[in-house]
Amino acid sequence: MIINGVTIDDTFAEAFGMRGTRVIITAQNLRWAYNAARAMTGFATSVIACGVEAGIERELTPEETPDGRPGVSILMFAMSSAVLIKQLETRMGQCVLTCPTAAAFSGIDEGYPEITRINLGKNLRFFGDGFQISKVFNGKRYWRVPVMDGEFLTEETTGMIRSVGGGNFLILAESQPQALAACEAAIDAMSKIPNVIMPFPGGVVRSGSKVGSKYKALIASTNDAFCPTLKGITKTELSPEIESVMEIVIDGLTDPDIRVAMRAGIAAACELGAKNGIKRISAGNYGGKLGPYHFKLREIMA
Amino acid sequence: MIINGVTIDDTFAEAFGMRGTRVIITAQNLRWAYNAARAMTGFATSVIACGVEAGIERELTPEETPDGRPGVSILMFAMSSAVLIKQLETRMGQCVLTCPTAAAFSGIDEGYPEITRINLGKNLRFFGDGFQISKVFNGKRYWRVPVMDGEFLTEETTGMIRSVGGGNFLILAESQPQALAACEAAIDAMSKIPNVIMPFPGGVVRSGSKVGSKYKALIASTNDAFCPTLKGITKTELSPEIESVMEIVIDGLTDPDIRVAMRAGIAAACELGAKNGIKRISAGNYGGKLGPYHFKLREIMA
Amino acid sequence: MIINGVTIDDTFAEAFGMRGTRVIITAQNLRWAYNAARAMTGFATSVIACGVEAGIERELTPEETPDGRPGVSILMFAMSSAVLIKQLETRMGQCVLTCPTAAAFSGIDEGYPEITRINLGKNLRFFGDGFQISKVFNGKRYWRVPVMDGEFLTEETTGMIRSVGGGNFLILAESQPQALAACEAAIDAMSKIPNVIMPFPGGVVRSGSKVGSKYKALIASTNDAFCPTLKGITKTELSPEIESVMEIVIDGLTDPDIRVAMRAGIAAACELGAKNGIKRISAGNYGGKLGPYHFKLREIMA
Amino acid sequence: MIINGVTIDDTFAEAFGMRGTRVIITAQNLRWAYNAARAMTGFATSVIACGVEAGIERELTPEETPDGRPGVSILMFAMSSAVLIKQLETRMGQCVLTCPTAAAFSGIDEGYPEITRINLGKNLRFFGDGFQISKVFNGKRYWRVPVMDGEFLTEETTGMIRSVGGGNFLILAESQPQALAACEAAIDAMSKIPNVIMPFPGGVVRSGSKVGSKYKALIASTNDAFCPTLKGITKTELSPEIESVMEIVIDGLTDPDIRVAMRAGIAAACELGAKNGIKRISAGNYGGKLGPYHFKLREIMA
Repeated sequence: MIINGVTIDDTFAEAFGMRGTRVIITAQNLRWAYNAARAMTGFATSVIACGVEAGIERELTPEETPDGRPGVSILMFAMSSAVLIKQLETRMGQCVLTCPTAAAFSGIDEGYPEITRINLGKNLRFFGDGFQISKVFNGKRYWRVPVMDGEFLTEETTGMIRSVGGGNFLILAESQPQALAACEAAIDAMSKIPNVIMPFPGGVVRSGSKVGSKYKALIASTNDAFCPTLKGITKTELSPEIESVMEIVIDGLTDPDIRVAMRAGIAAACELGAKNGIKRISAGNYGGKLGPYHFKLREIMA
Repeated sequence: MIINGVTIDDTFAEAFGMRGTRVIITAQNLRWAYNAARAMTGFATSVIACGVEAGIERELTPEETPDGRPGVSILMFAMSSAVLIKQLETRMGQCVLTCPTAAAFSGIDEGYPEITRINLGKNLRFFGDGFQISKVFNGKRYWRVPVMDGEFLTEETTGMIRSVGGGNFLILAESQPQALAACEAAIDAMSKIPNVIMPFPGGVVRSGSKVGSKYKALIASTNDAFCPTLKGITKTELSPEIESVMEIVIDGLTDPDIRVAMRAGIAAACELGAKNGIKRISAGNYGGKLGPYHFKLREIMA
Repeated sequence: MIINGVTIDDTFAEAFGMRGTRVIITAQNLRWAYNAARAMTGFATSVIACGVEAGIERELTPEETPDGRPGVSILMFAMSSAVLIKQLETRMGQCVLTCPTAAAFSGIDEGYPEITRINLGKNLRFFGDGFQISKVFNGKRYWRVPVMDGEFLTEETTGMIRSVGGGNFLILAESQPQALAACEAAIDAMSKIPNVIMPFPGGVVRSGSKVGSKYKALIASTNDAFCPTLKGITKTELSPEIESVMEIVIDGLTDPDIRVAMRAGIAAACELGAKNGIKRISAGNYGGKLGPYHFKLREIMA
Repeated sequence: MIINGVTIDDTFAEAFGMRGTRVIITAQNLRWAYNAARAMTGFATSVIACGVEAGIERELTPEETPDGRPGVSILMFAMSSAVLIKQLETRMGQCVLTCPTAAAFSGIDEGYPEITRINLGKNLRFFGDGFQISKVFNGKRYWRVPVMDGEFLTEETTGMIRSVGGGNFLILAESQPQALAACEAAIDAMSKIPNVIMPFPGGVVRSGSKVGSKYKALIASTNDAFCPTLKGITKTELSPEIESVMEIVIDGLTDPDIRVAMRAGIAAACELGAKNGIKRISAGNYGGKLGPYHFKLREIMA
């Protein structure tokens, strides 16, 4: 399959089951909603060392938020419920409880076959030292916690669902600026798709890894087969003209969400096309035996 | 002391010794330098649950960076060397090693009485699986680690010094938007001061705490004496017209750095003045017995 | 009518017929689409001295743009077809023809009772010095104009319709930071509404005017009845506690579009409420005799 | 001359005398200082159709502004005093007088051999309808004009000097994304240099022109010798591998300011180097007979 001169590999991205949640953060204005959301989703590029993978999903209009204020929604994913619940509580306490004028609400209430309620502000309420006030409204419990700027308003719980992490595709280009340009176009497009985040810095990762290392203490190391500077000295997967490879990883609430995002991102990268040095789109997998979700590139782009 | 109608309390901020370091992050352009730096300094509002307090210090011109590319400098602080070293390595691995086109360099080489070299890319080099290359240039060691987008270039170490955390001041205003406006003006001004960061979301914290809680499991709880909604039901420190209080916390490489930043921030807040609802500037301390650094507000503003 | 403690005046905004058009600007990525769009809609706050009132309407996904690239849509309004056509051509030539990787497309093709086609790139094509190439696709004509970065792609025409300018409301507050906070919240909300722009800087104007002046050469001057500093020395419309007034002006493709935007903005301002110093919402009119469109505040907020 | 594999042509940029001025714009916070400054410097890419070339020079700390608030400085250039004076007044009236909380001050007071005072707020004061108040402070006259949000504070005049417009260089690359990447790096670097602006959208222009056209009504048309798509059908200046050319134009307060900016921008572009598709740096001139300022590339990069 070739799109605008770009070869789409006959391969697939292999993805995993994760637990995912959404939180709606509002504030007096968008600047402060973003301040809270950026702090809360920072240092969350990979579950391996960050615990969670998190990102800002999109901006919300006042009509879309429970308290009628401007807001943003964030998504957070982990490999287990326990880690997700713990990280959510910690990050809420450090980044939303602390942030001037910010409030937090459940972002998943219906629309999925199985939704587990997890703590959002349930334990943070104790910060109120007994002065906190509970309120039930439309069947949902909220907490008003006295803080210096007024009150921290938070819903008691949010919804957690079974979701999917590790959707991905690789962009192979003739030079680094071209690969980066394709990634920027792809991220610009994918950031408009609901229900997904691209957790790495700016949405992109350049340090793809293989399992194992010559250093026995390490369980992963650079994917030398995809390193352009090693073409001459290792068993490479790169043809001679490829000088830069970048990867976009996607976590999504469901399998179809990831498909939509992958399609949008690959299409945007291919829009630049071969004449701009974009030569090939590939994907990362482990032979298909580890992850239950297989996103076939050619099927997605059909 | 009264500035533009704003009362400056006769009190002081009590701050603590920390260990601090600076890292210079460069990339193909500023967008990607910021992408790496924001990921690396995210979820770093308070040492208690984040391990470190971190933030972006400032943008750097290509003339100011070791590799002649656009960049930003970040500062990171922890309560001990061990935590700082560990967090630096983890965050470097998750947020700079991964970020397209990013490189990292030492940000502290001289100018302080005692500088300890700590690992910056020293251990990350093993990600190269033996393909990494060392280079000594002007007496400093660098590593070139093959990655998919080309090479990850990193200096082997950066400098760590004894620094100061917890400088702070409180803004007391007649309403929440006025307190927020004063904080925005203060942060706009303080973000131009070198050698400091304001680690909370957007630079501001609204959830000031006191030691202890009625819930025995908790070691801290809301500072009810400064909560406007509790004026009628607790022993308050707030006069009747105060309806919102916000705090700016500052970590700095040295004691004088924090003074300069506090002065700039307080001056900016007072510029709005009493006619805009800014009534009083105070500061947080523990009676002066815990932290060795005392920043007296009236001395700073003299 | 009182919303969250804020009085909604029993008055109306008086608006005028204008001609409006939409242009879709795409580029390699969003940064450059914005660069073109910001240049093109700059210095366009008021028809009186700028010729047109213009602004960015919203971001577009690649799926929403004719060439599958990220983009933004801009709206432009003038008091007559002739001025709009002339300004559109000039601004296209200065700000989109010149901008790296940018392309321009029609933003109004159907959905309105009467659409007039006006030149978008029709005359700009001659910049190609005879090397330009025409292409008809799906019944629409496009031009490919050779430029240094490759080709400037532009649709030949875009649609112009009869639209509405001068929707507005006033926010009256107890202090300047509070008025500004309400405006920021309102603009954050209104910027999500399609088919409208708020043409003044950041969406807000503080220099409301009355007809006439003591200086005979001037046809308008400061609306002293709404100036807080003149409460003691002129016939004021302000009660004693009002210390700051700001106005949001809206231009929209149709009358209902302006209503939706006004409602969103007023609701966001009232969300802050009287406890945050927001006391009153009013609107500007000329007694109802000049402009055919009357937007009654209480009807809109009902 | 070759830098990092990039050929520096043995040519020069030919620039012209202009009149230039600087205005300092402050506001309650940086968001609103930028709102005013962006409106004021929008649609100002080229003197031919915009009257002036204008841009934001840099952010200012409260210590650097006359009223102790956050601010930005803007530069504005025109081919004659009369046009500059007229445009400054119009743009001030539309974009700063109107902008909530904004104030304007002189940006050039000393340091140049010949400074002409021109009106900044001198005529705008009449908007006050007689309620305006004059104040002399440190030998400078200011006006306080009552407006709805409080007062518009403006200095009476600012300084105008003889300056230089049209410094430029061309980046020639193997593809459009590579040329764009080099421009982004160059603009990131040049935006840190004082006393200069790059007036085109995002700082870059892709529609270079030659004098004359086959259409007799036009005085300029596409510079076909530098259009990559025309290599086969016109007398080209491009070697076969060049597929995209972009130009950065610089206006500066003085001749040395432009040199410093050109050096920074070219160095940043060359930092990407030949391996990233950046092949050649050139410059635009008219044979040296029209403009008195000649910026020789090799001299600047020596």
